[in-house]
Amino acid sequence: MSVKKKFARESFTTMTELVLPNDTNTLNNLMGGRLMHWMDVASAIAAQKHSNRIVVTAAFDTISFKRPIQLGNVITLKAKVTRSFSSSMEVHVTVEAEDIPSGEKFQTHSAFATFVAVDQAGRPIDVPECVPESDDEKQHYEAALRRRQLRLIFAGRIKASDAKELISYFEDMKAHE
Amino acid sequence: MSVKKKFARESFTTMTELVLPNDTNTLNNLMGGRLMHWMDVASAIAAQKHSNRIVVTAAFDTISFKRPIQLGNVITLKAKVTRSFSSSMEVHVTVEAEDIPSGEKFQTHSAFATFVAVDQAGRPIDVPECVPESDDEKQHYEAALRRRQLRLIFAGRIKASDAKELISYFEDMKAHE
Amino acid sequence: MSVKKKFARESFTTMTELVLPNDTNTLNNLMGGRLMHWMDVASAIAAQKHSNRIVVTAAFDTISFKRPIQLGNVITLKAKVTRSFSSSMEVHVTVEAEDIPSGEKFQTHSAFATFVAVDQAGRPIDVPECVPESDDEKQHYEAALRRRQLRLIFAGRIKASDAKELISYFEDMKAHE
Amino acid sequence: MSVKKKFARESFTTMTELVLPNDTNTLNNLMGGRLMHWMDVASAIAAQKHSNRIVVTAAFDTISFKRPIQLGNVITLKAKVTRSFSSSMEVHVTVEAEDIPSGEKFQTHSAFATFVAVDQAGRPIDVPECVPESDDEKQHYEAALRRRQLRLIFAGRIKASDAKELISYFEDMKAHE
Amino acid sequence: MSVKKKFARESFTTMTELVLPNDTNTLNNLMGGRLMHWMDVASAIAAQKHSNRIVVTAAFDTISFKRPIQLGNVITLKAKVTRSFSSSMEVHVTVEAEDIPSGEKFQTHSAFATFVAVDQAGRPIDVPECVPESDDEKQHYEAALRRRQLRLIFAGRIKASDAKELISYFEDMKAHE
Amino acid sequence: MSVKKKFARESFTTMTELVLPNDTNTLNNLMGGRLMHWMDVASAIAAQKHSNRIVVTAAFDTISFKRPIQLGNVITLKAKVTRSFSSSMEVHVTVEAEDIPSGEKFQTHSAFATFVAVDQAGRPIDVPECVPESDDEKQHYEAALRRRQLRLIFAGRIKASDAKELISYFEDMKAHE
Repeated sequence: MSVKKKFARESFTTMTELVLPNDTNTLNNLMGGRLMHWMDVASAIAAQKHSNRIVVTAAFDTISFKRPIQLGNVITLKAKVTRSFSSSMEVHVTVEAEDIPSGEKFQTHSAFATFVAVDQAGRPIDVPECVPESDDEKQHYEAALRRRQLRLIFAGRIKASDAKELISYFEDMKAHE
Repeated sequence: MSVKKKFARESFTTMTELVLPNDTNTLNNLMGGRLMHWMDVASAIAAQKHSNRIVVTAAFDTISFKRPIQLGNVITLKAKVTRSFSSSMEVHVTVEAEDIPSGEKFQTHSAFATFVAVDQAGRPIDVPECVPESDDEKQHYEAALRRRQLRLIFAGRIKASDAKELISYFEDMKAHE
Repeated sequence: MSVKKKFARESFTTMTELVLPNDTNTLNNLMGGRLMHWMDVASAIAAQKHSNRIVVTAAFDTISFKRPIQLGNVITLKAKVTRSFSSSMEVHVTVEAEDIPSGEKFQTHSAFATFVAVDQAGRPIDVPECVPESDDEKQHYEAALRRRQLRLIFAGRIKASDAKELISYFEDMKAHE
Repeated sequence: MSVKKKFARESFTTMTELVLPNDTNTLNNLMGGRLMHWMDVASAIAAQKHSNRIVVTAAFDTISFKRPIQLGNVITLKAKVTRSFSSSMEVHVTVEAEDIPSGEKFQTHSAFATFVAVDQAGRPIDVPECVPESDDEKQHYEAALRRRQLRLIFAGRIKASDAKELISYFEDMKAHE
Repeated sequence: MSVKKKFARESFTTMTELVLPNDTNTLNNLMGGRLMHWMDVASAIAAQKHSNRIVVTAAFDTISFKRPIQLGNVITLKAKVTRSFSSSMEVHVTVEAEDIPSGEKFQTHSAFATFVAVDQAGRPIDVPECVPESDDEKQHYEAALRRRQLRLIFAGRIKASDAKELISYFEDMKAHE
Repeated sequence: MSVKKKFARESFTTMTELVLPNDTNTLNNLMGGRLMHWMDVASAIAAQKHSNRIVVTAAFDTISFKRPIQLGNVITLKAKVTRSFSSSMEVHVTVEAEDIPSGEKFQTHSAFATFVAVDQAGRPIDVPECVPESDDEKQHYEAALRRRQLRLIFAGRIKASDAKELISYFEDMKAHE
């Protein structure tokens, strides 16, 4: 069986949304849940482009919302597969908001999501290997292994002591302090 | 200034949703983003009940989707504040799906979300202290401190080495192995 | 063929909704139609839980909206089967609104809806008998017969003079004056 | 102050809806709540045309759904004010479904709804008198008084024994047997 | 095979919409895209009534939006088939807005849309001939041929020099100057 | 007063949409109205980026839908301002559909839309001049003048005989035959 390789950039997806009244709370701030919904759609499309398969969301890593997004703002989401593991793919998604009258743009946050490709019967199926090219893509590719171990510990599927890559992950974080 | 205390159970919120066609992918599975949207709404209502304030989503911790939810399933979300920190509140939200014809119910996953209470000008404002009563509430209250440190490290706002509670968190995880 | 019994409380369903801009008129009042839509969904889920079947709405009894519900209010709907008749079930649904900033809660109104359980071909199919336990459940169970006669008269399916239970219903109302 | 008269036909409103997937249950039948939502919108527009005011739903009389409406059907709703009482208006709304491939049309049901006209502060305000012209309009106008008494009894605002018109209403129904 | 004739008026469709917050931009003006969506639905229903078939949108002619429509306005769309060509039908749709408090009505614009009738496999299928009766219907019927040639030129499917009817169309326009 | 210049590419907007059940007819084809709604949103965002103003849709030129788009397809819309005229801007928008399982991509159609920039009171306000750079942008810039004359003739605001650029437009078309 031949599972071919694909470049990370082939999965690149841009999605634009306009913040409408029903997307906001009574202070006219975009509700977090609506944004997570858009992040999931953008990431899922990237994973579909990589795998040419229907995909199901397996996990969403911690999301920290940095500053409020307002009614009328234009939201740009960018998603790209960072690495694949058998039938699963990690996707990096960034969110940028733009206030049209002032022309001010600001990146609000980013997140990592994981998807599983499935066949028509809903069973997991192998996906192409993801090949990074740019420096950013290579960094995301490398770190994807450590993030995966963290997810498996959180999901109770591996022991913390077995997560050798994770230990270096925390060492990484310390190194950045 | 007097910020009063409230019991965790006073914020308890139950939300029921029916999975409709537009909530699903072409395999009739509920899309993850729709579910995250509902999780955010249920959690936000719990945080609003605790604070009697408008709240904004500050963070969503890692979510692992365990098994697919089908078109026509009835989803029950239950949310309750676990602990408050000045103007922020952590909320625990669980998701249960029910297949009506078979009567089969299964808990699909749970997550922790953090909200900040704001005044009419959108500025953070202190909320009541959250008082746990049951054993479950007390466990969530205790562990909330460690989860908070993990969030602050992820958000780059404290050093991993300063997160004393977090170290015990990983020790906890090892103890459960 | 064995149609089993189920307790009224087993069908109990709670649904929470946040009043969003698109749910309101230009005075920021919740539109009645949106609320009736939510009442139907909550009641239908209760009837589905009781029958473990797909259900179709057969009737909605008179609804009197008592006071306006505002944008941003949290709506709690509670539905429970009161009695079953062959393939149909009567459901009682109550609506409560909460103004978060003031913490004020008020019950806005309640209604009775009737659903018919159907099989995969859409044909009516018998449902379990509904067994009341609490005093409230017993009162609703008793009165369900009279409400049913009123519905059948309105639908032109029985003669008013044949509705013996209905006569006592009007006598009941007089007794409460 | 001059509240002018308007003809019933001036409030006539036709609304057409196409039954889409999200409007249906898993048997592809239109859900009752969606239909009630459309009935409320059509009726409210008729009441707005009569009063040239924002209106709020005060009551919906008993609705009996006669036969299921299918995915893809075209729904035609027709609404017209039958009579006004100070600040309130009764509206008659009929629902017709059409199956396009077969060209089959069938009236599914009709209902009476009551709306209150309000000013910009949300206070009830008097509306024009409704003048019936056709025979149908005159019959609806006459019977509106009896339906109103029934509503007031159901809402607990008048005694059954005081509803002189209602007694003739039930006598009417007997006369039709 | 017998394709029967139908009168233009048999396809007449009226659709009413209330402009809700999510339909508007931050100046409370109805967004053009929402209105085009409604124009398509109303026109498609008219084409379905004429053909008793599922239809797909083939083209929308130039639309000029004349004046802004506000939040809370009631929109009335009227659609009617003007002429049929084998499997395609041209539909004329007009849009009227009403400001309820002032009672002011104004026609905002009209447009011509083209639909193709398809069978269950999605293949084009012949539709009944459209027979105009009123003067307006006859004018629309005559001009439909010229509009069709313009569409075919725009779509690059016929040469401008071959569009004999189109030349008279431009001469018509000059005649109106 | 200084109205600055901006490059066409600065307004470039990409929007991605997933075709969901409610976007389709009963043959699972995307409805034209939904697509026009997305085309309007994508174009409006491009016009907003160019003008840093709220914009209102003034016109949509003829749209020819070439081939059906299916449920589950991923739609990519690309919009860019081609030229500005005082307070109005012409935008070119293209639509591409992708069938994920086969990986097949096809451009379905393109269109030109016109928007007017308005101030907070809704009055037209001048926008920056649009400067084309690439060959495509230059061609669109040149032809925009002719398309504008055609629109003005259609809207009855100039005489056909005065549209000197339009004559060359039709000559252009003949030249392409």
